[in-house]
Amino acid sequence: MSAVRIGIVGVAGRMGQAITREIAASKGAAVLAGGIEQPGNPALGKDPGELAGIGPTGVAITEDAAALFGTVDVVIDFSPPAAVSRHATLAAQGKTAYVVGTTGLEPTQFEALEKAAHHCAVVQSYNMSLGVNILAGLTRQVAASLGEDWDIEIVEMHHRMKVDAPSGTAILFGEMAALGRGQPLDKISDRGRDGITGERKRGDIGFAALRGGNVAGEHTVIFAADNERIELTHKATDRSIFARGAVRAAIWTKGKLPGLYRMADVLGLNN
Amino acid sequence: MSAVRIGIVGVAGRMGQAITREIAASKGAAVLAGGIEQPGNPALGKDPGELAGIGPTGVAITEDAAALFGTVDVVIDFSPPAAVSRHATLAAQGKTAYVVGTTGLEPTQFEALEKAAHHCAVVQSYNMSLGVNILAGLTRQVAASLGEDWDIEIVEMHHRMKVDAPSGTAILFGEMAALGRGQPLDKISDRGRDGITGERKRGDIGFAALRGGNVAGEHTVIFAADNERIELTHKATDRSIFARGAVRAAIWTKGKLPGLYRMADVLGLNN
Amino acid sequence: MSAVRIGIVGVAGRMGQAITREIAASKGAAVLAGGIEQPGNPALGKDPGELAGIGPTGVAITEDAAALFGTVDVVIDFSPPAAVSRHATLAAQGKTAYVVGTTGLEPTQFEALEKAAHHCAVVQSYNMSLGVNILAGLTRQVAASLGEDWDIEIVEMHHRMKVDAPSGTAILFGEMAALGRGQPLDKISDRGRDGITGERKRGDIGFAALRGGNVAGEHTVIFAADNERIELTHKATDRSIFARGAVRAAIWTKGKLPGLYRMADVLGLNN
Amino acid sequence: MSAVRIGIVGVAGRMGQAITREIAASKGAAVLAGGIEQPGNPALGKDPGELAGIGPTGVAITEDAAALFGTVDVVIDFSPPAAVSRHATLAAQGKTAYVVGTTGLEPTQFEALEKAAHHCAVVQSYNMSLGVNILAGLTRQVAASLGEDWDIEIVEMHHRMKVDAPSGTAILFGEMAALGRGQPLDKISDRGRDGITGERKRGDIGFAALRGGNVAGEHTVIFAADNERIELTHKATDRSIFARGAVRAAIWTKGKLPGLYRMADVLGLNN
Repeated sequence: MSAVRIGIVGVAGRMGQAITREIAASKGAAVLAGGIEQPGNPALGKDPGELAGIGPTGVAITEDAAALFGTVDVVIDFSPPAAVSRHATLAAQGKTAYVVGTTGLEPTQFEALEKAAHHCAVVQSYNMSLGVNILAGLTRQVAASLGEDWDIEIVEMHHRMKVDAPSGTAILFGEMAALGRGQPLDKISDRGRDGITGERKRGDIGFAALRGGNVAGEHTVIFAADNERIELTHKATDRSIFARGAVRAAIWTKGKLPGLYRMADVLGLNN
Repeated sequence: MSAVRIGIVGVAGRMGQAITREIAASKGAAVLAGGIEQPGNPALGKDPGELAGIGPTGVAITEDAAALFGTVDVVIDFSPPAAVSRHATLAAQGKTAYVVGTTGLEPTQFEALEKAAHHCAVVQSYNMSLGVNILAGLTRQVAASLGEDWDIEIVEMHHRMKVDAPSGTAILFGEMAALGRGQPLDKISDRGRDGITGERKRGDIGFAALRGGNVAGEHTVIFAADNERIELTHKATDRSIFARGAVRAAIWTKGKLPGLYRMADVLGLNN
Repeated sequence: MSAVRIGIVGVAGRMGQAITREIAASKGAAVLAGGIEQPGNPALGKDPGELAGIGPTGVAITEDAAALFGTVDVVIDFSPPAAVSRHATLAAQGKTAYVVGTTGLEPTQFEALEKAAHHCAVVQSYNMSLGVNILAGLTRQVAASLGEDWDIEIVEMHHRMKVDAPSGTAILFGEMAALGRGQPLDKISDRGRDGITGERKRGDIGFAALRGGNVAGEHTVIFAADNERIELTHKATDRSIFARGAVRAAIWTKGKLPGLYRMADVLGLNN
Repeated sequence: MSAVRIGIVGVAGRMGQAITREIAASKGAAVLAGGIEQPGNPALGKDPGELAGIGPTGVAITEDAAALFGTVDVVIDFSPPAAVSRHATLAAQGKTAYVVGTTGLEPTQFEALEKAAHHCAVVQSYNMSLGVNILAGLTRQVAASLGEDWDIEIVEMHHRMKVDAPSGTAILFGEMAALGRGQPLDKISDRGRDGITGERKRGDIGFAALRGGNVAGEHTVIFAADNERIELTHKATDRSIFARGAVRAAIWTKGKLPGLYRMADVLGLNN
């Protein structure tokens, strides 16, 4: 099987370097075929492999998104949201698969992805780690099999630089739990518990956020009944797992029909 | 729907009392219809409800197992293994459902249960808690979806009086994980790690046992890959959850065809 | 050594019964010498030992607080705050030691305890368990030895009926941590984190509250630096530990000079 | 205050690079003044700062241990045990402080360190992280304040390549706990629990080892009584914390009298 040719948006950044290393570790299933950076970025013209500490790849970093989307099989993008709509259009035009890990997407950007998905495979996820997506499916499944006498609480810990709470991944778990219960999350979400709260409301899903150190990301979904608890936990100790998931998604797009996919599809999970 | 009439073997013991209380908490789905104790037990002739602190139930404790199996819909039995084969025969003769939580069964006793299961519904499990059985199914499922680059470790903690390690429930989790991987547990089990062990063997399932205090039972199944971990945990803080599971199983047997069932069947789990 | 004669306020309640059982388990170091309840309580006239399931103690429940404080060596009180000031006065008049586990005390009630402490030994604590008080001391000590590059987070879980957050014990840990850092807690407390919070503020102490099931009380103090964390955890699985601590405090008061004491004094901790 | 001039043995290795980075992060308190490698090492002649990714330091790597010990204030050594005795002699001759993180030392090597400690400050520790040493002190202290009705269990998790169990740090915690109880660890150590173990022996200290993924090191000391538990946990997510501790120790040696010191001395802990 020929290697999937991958392009990377933001290839010189921390995430781009991690993706470059994961492609190199793919045992020939994927190959780095291009990478772009913003105009003015000092990495322009350099080799992404040199930047990532894995030796030369023969690729030179450019600023030309159109050329990138025109020459590779699939593009991976974790860059800020501003360029997502334009990249989606380029993906559709080139019938190039598009793997989007960008967080904080606006509704209009989701629409651009949906439109592109009529022409090419698009994989979008706020968390591309295998473990988190496995756990998301379990959360939905357990929530569906347990009654409301099992209180659901979601607690996460992240590094001190994180500016929002709860994390997007915690919200993903909350959505899966709510889905399992057949309820809309916003109706049953209990966040920022503090002061005189009154007794816990039956059926609510509670969220708590811890911040400290440089924790890459830990999430626990607690199901608490009288005298027993089930706890589903994911711990990430390094951001490389997100890069690894993105490369797996990119390889998976090979030969796929146009469509908007989630990581659960990539991983063959029944989420 | 008429209440399921439940009989209890060992009704005056700690577990029998817990079951009596759970029947009373069943909101009319079940009713205590009889209970037996060994000849000579001081509780003979007393009302199990009085012993369990929930007031009179109108039932008097007897020592007559045959009469018990002849008059109720289903019998719950957590008593020592010695009487299980005889009770299985009585269940078959009376076409009375039989819920067996007795631990440490011998092969001949399993055979007695299988034979009885041609004539009546038999539910057998070493751990009847809802949470543990949910987690057992998840363990199998996760083990099946993750490759051998995810190391599986099972750690449990129990009270200081426990005489064996690892716990039966830890072994249950190990069996489910091995099943998920399509391996026989005894070939890949790594127990009692100590001293110069060498590097961990790929594909092994490790077990560790902690003992202390009066811990009712805690189990964690760890799936550890590079830079990420999934952990599935169950915590029991009281033995009442096992009684609750047994009553749920007893109610479930109503109208069931003869057969040997597991808790997964009772709970509708796809284990 | 003659047994310490203990009286209990609210002796028929859940906490009073637990204290009665712990006195019986004291191996002769303490003896139940009296107990009171509110006028109209159906337990008046009954034997607290019968209520607590340990057999008769020879004591009859009365409603006479003055007589109680006049006849015993020490009174244990976990009743609602309203009567604390009056009981403090009675303790002072009778030179009877007074162990107060009542939570939610007002400043005027603290003053009443301080005034009484000129005449008798008063032990006041929001959490009388040995483990929590040990951990409180450790929290102060660790906070004092680590710099502000170690972020402090306190997370607790309690049963679904709890109406306030964070728990009094979590606040106790917060106070000890703040003390260790030489800061007033109210200046550095970060509670109810939710939404766009911005980066974590250096030196803050974060609180998070989980609610679910019938969890008796779990607290973890996290110290998180880059690449390492220290976590100090206490888990209670039963309220009996609070009763045990109160009886230990009551026995400890024997022969003590008047004064206001904390559990750290009782336990010989250098908190 | 002038910067402490640090030399590194094994400066081009993974640990040497981490130490180089920590020196650079010391805000002028320390400066890299030299580094050695084995004869034939390809890094000879290179700049350690370039290797560590922090830019040039002006130092060139040599193979001359005697020159290194003769020109710096303090040498940090995490290299294999073989050279420790010779380095200790060089440290004594040069009155150069010596920080030794090498693991698996033989008795003769400990003697060499003790002898050198008559002439210069020597800091020796199997774990130089601040967090572990804090926790070791707490472990001793808690073990000393709690009776034997609190069962002590130590559980650790490390990466799948680790060849021995339990970890050296787990044994350190065990020794501190045993010290707190005034018992020799080898008399009360309970390792590799498996099979029919019988009830837990009062006063024993249990050990359990988990292996999986690339976990850098996690340790929990559990104190379990009836109905309550204290758990002291340390989690390392990166080996840089050991480098950081070594640099802190090196800076601390400035102006110290000759002597054999532990990390507790460096950290001002009352272990």
